Amino acid sequence: MYVFRSLSLLFLTVAACTSPPQGGEDVRISVLDGFIREALFHGRAYDRLEELCTVAPHRLSASTDAAAAIEWARATMEKEGFENIRLEPCVIPRWVRGATEQLFVVEPKEHAGERLAILALGGSIATPPAGLEADVIQVQNFEELTRRAEEARGKLVLFNRPMDSRLVDPFQAYRGAVNQRAIGASKAAAVGAVGAICRSMTTRLDNVPHTGGMRYAKRVPRIPSAACSTEAAERIAGWIDAGKRVRLRMVLNCREEDPVGSFNVIGELTGWEKPEEIVVVGGHLDAWDVGQGAHDDGAGCVQSIEAVSLVMRLDQRPRRTLRCVLFMNEENGTGGARAYAAAHGAEHHVLAIESDRGGFTPRGFTSDARGEVFDILQSLVELQKRTGAEKLISGGGGVDISPLAASHVPLVGYLPDAQRYFDLHHSASDTLDEVNERELALGAAAIASLAWLVADLPETLPPNPPR
Amino acid sequence: MYVFRSLSLLFLTVAACTSPPQGGEDVRISVLDGFIREALFHGRAYDRLEELCTVAPHRLSASTDAAAAIEWARATMEKEGFENIRLEPCVIPRWVRGATEQLFVVEPKEHAGERLAILALGGSIATPPAGLEADVIQVQNFEELTRRAEEARGKLVLFNRPMDSRLVDPFQAYRGAVNQRAIGASKAAAVGAVGAICRSMTTRLDNVPHTGGMRYAKRVPRIPSAACSTEAAERIAGWIDAGKRVRLRMVLNCREEDPVGSFNVIGELTGWEKPEEIVVVGGHLDAWDVGQGAHDDGAGCVQSIEAVSLVMRLDQRPRRTLRCVLFMNEENGTGGARAYAAAHGAEHHVLAIESDRGGFTPRGFTSDARGEVFDILQSLVELQKRTGAEKLISGGGGVDISPLAASHVPLVGYLPDAQRYFDLHHSASDTLDEVNERELALGAAAIASLAWLVADLPETLPPNPPR
Repeated sequence: MYVFRSLSLLFLTVAACTSPPQGGEDVRISVLDGFIREALFHGRAYDRLEELCTVAPHRLSASTDAAAAIEWARATMEKEGFENIRLEPCVIPRWVRGATEQLFVVEPKEHAGERLAILALGGSIATPPAGLEADVIQVQNFEELTRRAEEARGKLVLFNRPMDSRLVDPFQAYRGAVNQRAIGASKAAAVGAVGAICRSMTTRLDNVPHTGGMRYAKRVPRIPSAACSTEAAERIAGWIDAGKRVRLRMVLNCREEDPVGSFNVIGELTGWEKPEEIVVVGGHLDAWDVGQGAHDDGAGCVQSIEAVSLVMRLDQRPRRTLRCVLFMNEENGTGGARAYAAAHGAEHHVLAIESDRGGFTPRGFTSDARGEVFDILQSLVELQKRTGAEKLISGGGGVDISPLAASHVPLVGYLPDAQRYFDLHHSASDTLDEVNERELALGAAAIASLAWLVADLPETLPPNPPR
Repeated sequence: MYVFRSLSLLFLTVAACTSPPQGGEDVRISVLDGFIREALFHGRAYDRLEELCTVAPHRLSASTDAAAAIEWARATMEKEGFENIRLEPCVIPRWVRGATEQLFVVEPKEHAGERLAILALGGSIATPPAGLEADVIQVQNFEELTRRAEEARGKLVLFNRPMDSRLVDPFQAYRGAVNQRAIGASKAAAVGAVGAICRSMTTRLDNVPHTGGMRYAKRVPRIPSAACSTEAAERIAGWIDAGKRVRLRMVLNCREEDPVGSFNVIGELTGWEKPEEIVVVGGHLDAWDVGQGAHDDGAGCVQSIEAVSLVMRLDQRPRRTLRCVLFMNEENGTGGARAYAAAHGAEHHVLAIESDRGGFTPRGFTSDARGEVFDILQSLVELQKRTGAEKLISGGGGVDISPLAASHVPLVGYLPDAQRYFDLHHSASDTLDEVNERELALGAAAIASLAWLVADLPETLPPNPPR
């Protein structure tokens, strides 16, 4: 360790004064450079993420691992020396995957008994214990389903419209396909189908299924719903395309239990001048119950903690309070987000920043800010662009902070590079080894920078003007 | 495959006219969007890279795999329908790693016989067959070596200054450390040392050594030189730091043989109006003999081929000639670069673009262009920024095209994100699975875009003005 220690001696903290009035641009940039160096050289985000992925890899809401994640978050904030650490109650659904999720080929006969890779969708009911056997109809969209309603009756519907890989922005491709997963089952049930299978939300062609939330419409029978791998979807499509009858048997053991109590985990660095004015940085503590939720959203959690910690380690307590909020239940209910808004919506939130697009290399931020507020934020993003988070573009902030928009709180989403995200999202592939330590650290520095700049502005950032 | 085929039918090539005069901004942007969609949806770069990494993983200059890579390149250009395909001769060194490269601990006695991970540096001589045993002195830089010259006599010198991980740009950190690898052996020999070991050029702490080129100074004894893993460097440093005597035995079998003939591989899409004016796109075909050279520089090769191919597939033959040049011997001699400049330096090169920083997500381009030329290039980069290659910054173009600067050819380097590059560079970790298909494809689209825009300008891009 000799060399690291000797380099450590070279590391001069450029701005180690306590509670200074915010200086000119040069002073602020020297602080921001300090965040970058500290994050890259003594960064804790990656080690924290390793802890989280180890102690609570499958932290679906109301699971044992989710409870472990809450305790990990509380303990980590204590180790960091955060102030006002507390668990704040919320009510969340409890969906349990169960031991079995299988999809067997019945026909084509030459493939009978082969298994196709699936994951039950979060919120789905089970099949009968022996499974649900039916012929398969494949559709690309709800219009086709409506047109072929007669044909779909009594069938398993395969929603097989791929994410459009031609789009540069994978999130745009995701938005163009995810309605199949979210509401496909009820659309299928409405025309008399008995089950729904959704092509996984990824542009990759592989055998890894991607789960995710779905919801049932009212006044329509509830039918079981799963996501199959893109390879499975292509196999089925190939058989249908070749004029073969496709008949499958799906077995799901999942179940929805009664809602239970859980917690958001919150810690602060209180402002020295206006502690009642708050800048939120946050991510969500829950994750799907496959892989480790390393990018979604372990990365956002450890970056949020690290962002506040970086400000503390450089002794840069700002005028206003930095509040780290790790939300519960983003994935299947947003119970944590609603509880936070209910408990804190009346407080003076100056800004809320969410990191929930993975821990990849920084590209910038998105924001719903308008007019002058957008301009101010853009000037601050410009100050910290050396992190690689170079641009501010119009967009949402994130699911967990979105209820605050009603109180005119400007929302910001951290925007890492998105090209790899849907290779991993909601799948067994979302593991620690897919996270790069430097990319994760630079994201934490970017979030720390923007949060600190806003929290330390001499004049409070104005509320977001009405649309 | 049903779905891919059906999507394929939806893919309307927006600008499939032949040899059009270059239109206004809208027309050009629709062509560029076509490059993006084709690269993402029907892209060939990743499959080509898989071929190259399979048929010629260890394509060090003058090796069997290098010969296989040359044949692969020629055959691939033929499959693509390139014009004027040829192998152009160059003379290159032949360095052979040999079967053995080992570093054993002799002291501390409690670790005697343990092996530390090393790779011989390219160009190094061998040790005696039984190895070279000596005490170790650790230094951080050449100044310290000079100061401790007496102490270094008869020793193995460990150059152990890490790449500075605090820097956002890993290339800057590399430039700050790589002199230890490149010329450390002769610096050590000049003070009487008997061997040199260099800490691997990476910010990671792991057990994977990274090789690379070194060169001997004249009139100084040649001593054997290897790179050790960062973990090995830290272990040695820890022992020294604890006041222990460190004595090691290094065994290298490598040797430099006589120079041999080899080839650059070239193919073109000739311009319809001014075929004698040339835009080069290129990368280097050779690689180090560990890993697969997937990022360095398999990625640059397949992106260069794909860039020209994209223009062909969209039927967008430009006014000027696009020339794809796959250079031999970038890593240890630049024989290919010098041969190309000697053979073609007098031709009218309008621009040369090199991709040799890996196949990661696009950030932009670097260029040595000045004045008006820089401004024109910047306006063209702006046109294709949807690829993610958003900026043009001042810098070099690349090793292989650099001799063209003497002829006032503006040089451009493709600039992908750099955070992961030195995790892999010149090591066994530089393999296909570290390359993301979409990131690679977007880079190819970016290179195709800039090359096509310049090749199809109504007025020829002026030569780079003198500094």
